[in-house]
Amino acid sequence: MSKTIKRRKFIKLIGAGTAILQFQSFNHNRNRNSSEQPNIILLFADDLGYGDLSCYGHPTIRTKNLDRMAEEGIRLTSFYSAAPSCTPSRAALLTGRYPVRSGLPYVLMPESKNGIPHSEITLAEALKKTGYKTMAIGKWHLGHSRKKFFPTYNGFDSFYGLLYSNDMKPPFVKTDKPLQLYRNTEPVEYPVNQDTLTERYTNEAVKFINSSSGEPFFLYLAYNMPHLPIHTSERFRGKSRAGLYGDVIETIDWSVGQILKTLKQLKLDKNTIVIFTSDNGPWLNLPSRMLQENNKPWHTGSPGPLRGYKGNTYEGGMRVPCIIRWQNRIPSGQVSAEMATTMDIYCTIIKVTGSKIPVEHKIDGNDILPMLMGISSTPTKIFYYFRGKNLEAVREGKWKFRLSNHARKDIKPGQPPEPELYNLDVDPSERYNVASEHPEIVSHLKQLMIKFKKEIKTKSN
Amino acid sequence: MSKTIKRRKFIKLIGAGTAILQFQSFNHNRNRNSSEQPNIILLFADDLGYGDLSCYGHPTIRTKNLDRMAEEGIRLTSFYSAAPSCTPSRAALLTGRYPVRSGLPYVLMPESKNGIPHSEITLAEALKKTGYKTMAIGKWHLGHSRKKFFPTYNGFDSFYGLLYSNDMKPPFVKTDKPLQLYRNTEPVEYPVNQDTLTERYTNEAVKFINSSSGEPFFLYLAYNMPHLPIHTSERFRGKSRAGLYGDVIETIDWSVGQILKTLKQLKLDKNTIVIFTSDNGPWLNLPSRMLQENNKPWHTGSPGPLRGYKGNTYEGGMRVPCIIRWQNRIPSGQVSAEMATTMDIYCTIIKVTGSKIPVEHKIDGNDILPMLMGISSTPTKIFYYFRGKNLEAVREGKWKFRLSNHARKDIKPGQPPEPELYNLDVDPSERYNVASEHPEIVSHLKQLMIKFKKEIKTKSN
Repeated sequence: MSKTIKRRKFIKLIGAGTAILQFQSFNHNRNRNSSEQPNIILLFADDLGYGDLSCYGHPTIRTKNLDRMAEEGIRLTSFYSAAPSCTPSRAALLTGRYPVRSGLPYVLMPESKNGIPHSEITLAEALKKTGYKTMAIGKWHLGHSRKKFFPTYNGFDSFYGLLYSNDMKPPFVKTDKPLQLYRNTEPVEYPVNQDTLTERYTNEAVKFINSSSGEPFFLYLAYNMPHLPIHTSERFRGKSRAGLYGDVIETIDWSVGQILKTLKQLKLDKNTIVIFTSDNGPWLNLPSRMLQENNKPWHTGSPGPLRGYKGNTYEGGMRVPCIIRWQNRIPSGQVSAEMATTMDIYCTIIKVTGSKIPVEHKIDGNDILPMLMGISSTPTKIFYYFRGKNLEAVREGKWKFRLSNHARKDIKPGQPPEPELYNLDVDPSERYNVASEHPEIVSHLKQLMIKFKKEIKTKSN
Repeated sequence: MSKTIKRRKFIKLIGAGTAILQFQSFNHNRNRNSSEQPNIILLFADDLGYGDLSCYGHPTIRTKNLDRMAEEGIRLTSFYSAAPSCTPSRAALLTGRYPVRSGLPYVLMPESKNGIPHSEITLAEALKKTGYKTMAIGKWHLGHSRKKFFPTYNGFDSFYGLLYSNDMKPPFVKTDKPLQLYRNTEPVEYPVNQDTLTERYTNEAVKFINSSSGEPFFLYLAYNMPHLPIHTSERFRGKSRAGLYGDVIETIDWSVGQILKTLKQLKLDKNTIVIFTSDNGPWLNLPSRMLQENNKPWHTGSPGPLRGYKGNTYEGGMRVPCIIRWQNRIPSGQVSAEMATTMDIYCTIIKVTGSKIPVEHKIDGNDILPMLMGISSTPTKIFYYFRGKNLEAVREGKWKFRLSNHARKDIKPGQPPEPELYNLDVDPSERYNVASEHPEIVSHLKQLMIKFKKEIKTKSN
């Protein structure tokens, strides 16, 4: 009983944002009372668009488990992945930093030699230090040329999955390192049977959760789907109303259902934070090579009402679904347009598990737990939209300023970029450029971008 | 108890689609047991788009009452208004027929002399015959040049509202009949204070419901909002995150909340069917005249993931939100992509109230109650998309065929229309024209259109 009261007090203090000292001593206690540390399950879909779930308005895909999870928790509608493509997006999620800082702003290819630097402190590394059992399942994509880049060298006790994207295989890529399924550091399957991948990942996840009772755990499950080529197992094919793409999303929804069921069976559902989000928007600008293997141009997701798609800095490229459930802590039934990012997920998880926010270098995320609990507004007031190393846009509050000709159809090649300003609260679809009506806001946001570009360049990290 | 059993049996028979005789005798009983007849509340928004509600995915507009109503009932995601503009859409809703049949395929202007013909049997007329008390509140738009076109001459005991659209006033229209607020057949306010219109409509609705206890009632509340010029009262202004448009939608949501609260207070919530839908998609192609009165181009709704908008036959023009709640009868928490239309609402309400489907002329709707109850698929397999008198497209099952250059940006003026074929289950955004891949489906759907054009022309009604 007194433990419960302590927890309540702790949360209140966190809410007021004045809890640093309290927090430290609490952490200390936590290490001795590991049963109080919440388990963390981070579910990360690949190329799943803002509009791909029922609860985000898809007309034919039905995601009843994710919808219920949203009803039991919070559904965020201004949530950003920190990059519009795979590698940098994952780098940001696992380091809490803009991917230019960690040197991973571009997608790694099979022949790439680089990977996540040793100096980065991954979420798994931070949580391990506080006594967490950790596992990564699914897509890694943070380096594969040397073992030091592998998940098990970066804070995860174990790994089961692919080291890069599921399309990075011959004939698209000519490589002596074909796409293989790994268990820890060893390849265990080639060619990979992608049909059963989501199911097998789910089984691994359930096994991991079952084996972890008593110990706090961190499960990072990064689905390879719905990245093309899309696959699902026989029993899910033709089951959705929305074609193979719908089948694939509904398989992921089934997977989430299995995980939630397991938590319930083990009575871990109250003490486990479950987060579902995606690495970037849908792949609408499909290269023709993807039309092999029975793939069709419509085997892609939906940005819903948003403009843009994977690979660009319009909202559809980077704003993604995000559903977070922590029963008893995060009030149920919330839908929130408060801004947050994958880098905030990093910080929030670290804080809530009593782990340590790295002080070695700049962290770009914030602790959003008080916002998720509905007791304060978001601490994340500014978000920078990078495409690779290019800083193309910035959002502060409701205003988004963009300065790039990329993905613009109304600008002829060779023209200088024309400023765009959108009020995202009123115009989430980025239809009405109001730059000429608000020169002072344009100027202010331009300055923010210039300043941030300098900061990123001049600092050694 | 035996009454309950009888009702269950009745529903089962309806579900099996073999209940005509049973139905007639049941009706007969009903007239003597009016307390068993469900009350009907039909809420009809103006220009509200597919993507304008939280539960249909809007990022910043919050419609908690409509969201809850959807959770307590069914949310339809392939629901069509039978026309992409005001007058014909309302004609279809209240007659159960494609508006070309009733002679109302075009929007009535203040100077228009025509209106709803005497030969049409409105939903209110049908329900009056079975003992319903009826009231129309809000926008009429089915004729105003003579009293015989007024609501109170077409089945409604009383009326409080505007006879046509809220923008049809000087300087846009030069008329000796300015926009006035009517009580029954008499003007009671000029100029109309549009700021308080939704609130006053709500008060009238609550008063009507309160005065109807004991008697079955039919309330048709057709909001004037969010048709431009948008207005709301002081206390709602600036309250939403989504600007004035968001305030206006959230005012409607408040209104729905007030009505549901009244039903609960009167213990009528179990025996009242509440339906919420819209007359057509959002007005994205705003004429410049609308930018008077502090209106802005972004004061319009969102088609969500759909292509097109008000006035055209792409999905965004005619597919609208539809939420139906009938506690104890329609299972809660359903999200359904089964096809249905406003003409089905006509038939379903008539059947469920024990009223008579007109036999005098062709009715285009179907009874969708079994589908809403989840016990059968939709009886509505085909839908025809008219723009005015032009039949531009047809949907059968998942396939939509369209043959019109209207609203196409990829066709030069003067070119012959190029066939479009979309698989709406897989591609609800109408991105991928697959006409060339399925010539047999194109040919079949083209034939359906030719046949229907002939039927419409050759029949006297």
